[in-house]
Amino acid sequence: MKVLGIVAEYNPFHNGHMYHIEESKKLTGCDAVVCVMSGNFIQRGEPAIINKFARTEIALGHGVDLVIELPVPFAVSSAEFFAYGAVSILNSIGIVDCLSFGSESGDIQSLQELAEILVSEPESYRNELKSQLSAGLSFPVCRQKALEKYLKTQDKSNEALASLLETSNNILALEYLKALIKLNSNIQPSTVKRISNSYNTQELTGDISSATAIRNIIHRSKVVFGSQAMPLLAQKILEREISMGRGPNSLYSYENILLAFLRRATPQELESIQDVSEGLEYRIKNAAENSGSFDELLANICTKRYPKTRIQRILISLLAGMKRIDTEKFMKSGGPQYARILGFNEKGRELLSVMKKKSAIPVVTKASGYKTSSDSLVSRMLEIEAQATDTYVLAYKNPAFKKAGQEFTQNIVICR
Amino acid sequence: MKVLGIVAEYNPFHNGHMYHIEESKKLTGCDAVVCVMSGNFIQRGEPAIINKFARTEIALGHGVDLVIELPVPFAVSSAEFFAYGAVSILNSIGIVDCLSFGSESGDIQSLQELAEILVSEPESYRNELKSQLSAGLSFPVCRQKALEKYLKTQDKSNEALASLLETSNNILALEYLKALIKLNSNIQPSTVKRISNSYNTQELTGDISSATAIRNIIHRSKVVFGSQAMPLLAQKILEREISMGRGPNSLYSYENILLAFLRRATPQELESIQDVSEGLEYRIKNAAENSGSFDELLANICTKRYPKTRIQRILISLLAGMKRIDTEKFMKSGGPQYARILGFNEKGRELLSVMKKKSAIPVVTKASGYKTSSDSLVSRMLEIEAQATDTYVLAYKNPAFKKAGQEFTQNIVICR
Repeated sequence: MKVLGIVAEYNPFHNGHMYHIEESKKLTGCDAVVCVMSGNFIQRGEPAIINKFARTEIALGHGVDLVIELPVPFAVSSAEFFAYGAVSILNSIGIVDCLSFGSESGDIQSLQELAEILVSEPESYRNELKSQLSAGLSFPVCRQKALEKYLKTQDKSNEALASLLETSNNILALEYLKALIKLNSNIQPSTVKRISNSYNTQELTGDISSATAIRNIIHRSKVVFGSQAMPLLAQKILEREISMGRGPNSLYSYENILLAFLRRATPQELESIQDVSEGLEYRIKNAAENSGSFDELLANICTKRYPKTRIQRILISLLAGMKRIDTEKFMKSGGPQYARILGFNEKGRELLSVMKKKSAIPVVTKASGYKTSSDSLVSRMLEIEAQATDTYVLAYKNPAFKKAGQEFTQNIVICR
Repeated sequence: MKVLGIVAEYNPFHNGHMYHIEESKKLTGCDAVVCVMSGNFIQRGEPAIINKFARTEIALGHGVDLVIELPVPFAVSSAEFFAYGAVSILNSIGIVDCLSFGSESGDIQSLQELAEILVSEPESYRNELKSQLSAGLSFPVCRQKALEKYLKTQDKSNEALASLLETSNNILALEYLKALIKLNSNIQPSTVKRISNSYNTQELTGDISSATAIRNIIHRSKVVFGSQAMPLLAQKILEREISMGRGPNSLYSYENILLAFLRRATPQELESIQDVSEGLEYRIKNAAENSGSFDELLANICTKRYPKTRIQRILISLLAGMKRIDTEKFMKSGGPQYARILGFNEKGRELLSVMKKKSAIPVVTKASGYKTSSDSLVSRMLEIEAQATDTYVLAYKNPAFKKAGQEFTQNIVICR
């Protein structure tokens, strides 16, 4: 079998995701698909609209054969750590031949050239980046400006490369490529050009704004039936979850918990969270005192320098009890400490048995068996995941599904 | 002026409370009334249905001239500490001549006799109490049994005294009397026999079950209009608060916050709360994991040994960030560290000016002035109060009133 690796959130799964899986298989000639997927919290610093096992079920119904969890310290993280964590897992499990991701550009050569520059960080680029950052803007903006200036000084044909950084999927694509370079991986990258949803917003053809559009509809109306944007099975499972009182979850569901946690936290505790530094802890603390709603809280913290996603990731870290030191330890030890299986189909079962022999990291099919692992990094990573889930489920309407410890009792999804 | 002291919660204020104030004034001949009132959380371990300033406004409209806050470490506490805290404030402020409380008995002599025994704790009674407690029942039950046995061994006419311990208002009355004895106070106690509401449940004449009945109606229907149980002004203020989105608060409003706090807390942190010992911390922790709702949480913790009110008080302590060591420190230093004024009318203003000269503890009219008091007990007691309020307001429907720090910005109530 030739195995394709993909990285996804499926929040929720829609036609664009199906298009990506099908095109990627054609493009790479792969006949099996492993997906590393965010768990109950996602990269933009939000709870997933439905839980990871339901989303796994949907993925397995639409061309994915094996789903592995991207642990929350990497899932709820900058594009760089997110991509590194996911690619690191795909690289470690030893069975993946190709990696395919969406991009606005669709041009793997240009993306690869740019990725090489970003990894090698030539000195003049690095200096320019530093001077940009000192002006107080966000990292992505500074990076793009620094790169533009750097490329202008280079007498090359790739002067236009910096413009690749203007769109979010190219940026993520670059991070996948950077991760492959850093990991010295043999996995072959390729990219599928994304179909813009501006072409036909009624059909919501699958870029980020269409996922956002679908989520907005679901949060507003609590129904998904009749949507043209999602395959029928995905709709049905989403509808089932909502009717059972398990979602749709949103950050608003955690408004009071967040305000209570923040009002109780000391600035020192906040400062121990990834990405909280230079007094941001006091800014957050003050905002929590002076806000009566989640929207107010965000508005009182966010600035150009502190964009919404960064702040939301910090808030999710607080909910999950996850500290900067955790991420630092995991990164020092190579990234994700295990490959935790969320589900598989028949083909996925075959992949799994090969993977168990070849993987450089533990393959976890039964989380409870690793709860008290002698490897403290493994047990800590799992503990963070469990804490995240214990908070995630509090947003459910149905008390029967709000109990803690589900991380260790929920069976993985097996599709036949 | 002859000054009457009373202790109350007014949760909510009803006809029985008005009857108590009027009868007490007649009984004692007092012409001014100082009330020590629970703040935003009450003795049975619940949030007050509406906030303390609104309840102060109601009290001032119905015969009370000056309202002083019973600090949360005493308000949310056993009958003994509750009564001691309140009587200690009335004793410390130096202006109170009489204390009047309700009781089922209505017989101050008998109550006083029993209180003397309970304070002096004769050795044979103490031994009997110990042996009862070792059987694992709750303290009130054991105390009554021990007292019955002790009184039988005494060849006295007061053999029936133990039966006074059968009803909740007698028990509280005894605690007021015990506190007066312990404080060696000059305040003259008297008691008003409570009118049972079983006499006429339609008119809900003011015992504990009628307050409960009123609360139940309010929580169910969110309206109080048309109620015969409350004076009109009390109804109007209650209705105003609810229509503004400030109540009715109940423990259910804190369900998710409590579950999130408990799931994050370590057993050691729980063990540091007053009344958590002998493994109760693990029982609470397990219950928080295995419960999806507040009702389930309580059901999973409570037993005969751990009655509901004790558990609820522990949960409120958690919400307020209040530890056993706090209460111990306050008690070592004589109880409440200040008399914090919640409101007054013209007569109350006169009382206040005399009180400022005579009081043995600081008289706080502007809480913000004591936020950073050099007296660490004063600032800590105020910090707990502020934390309690910061959590209390999270149950409001209206985000405009959910901000923190209201403890230091809210003006006291002045009625002309």
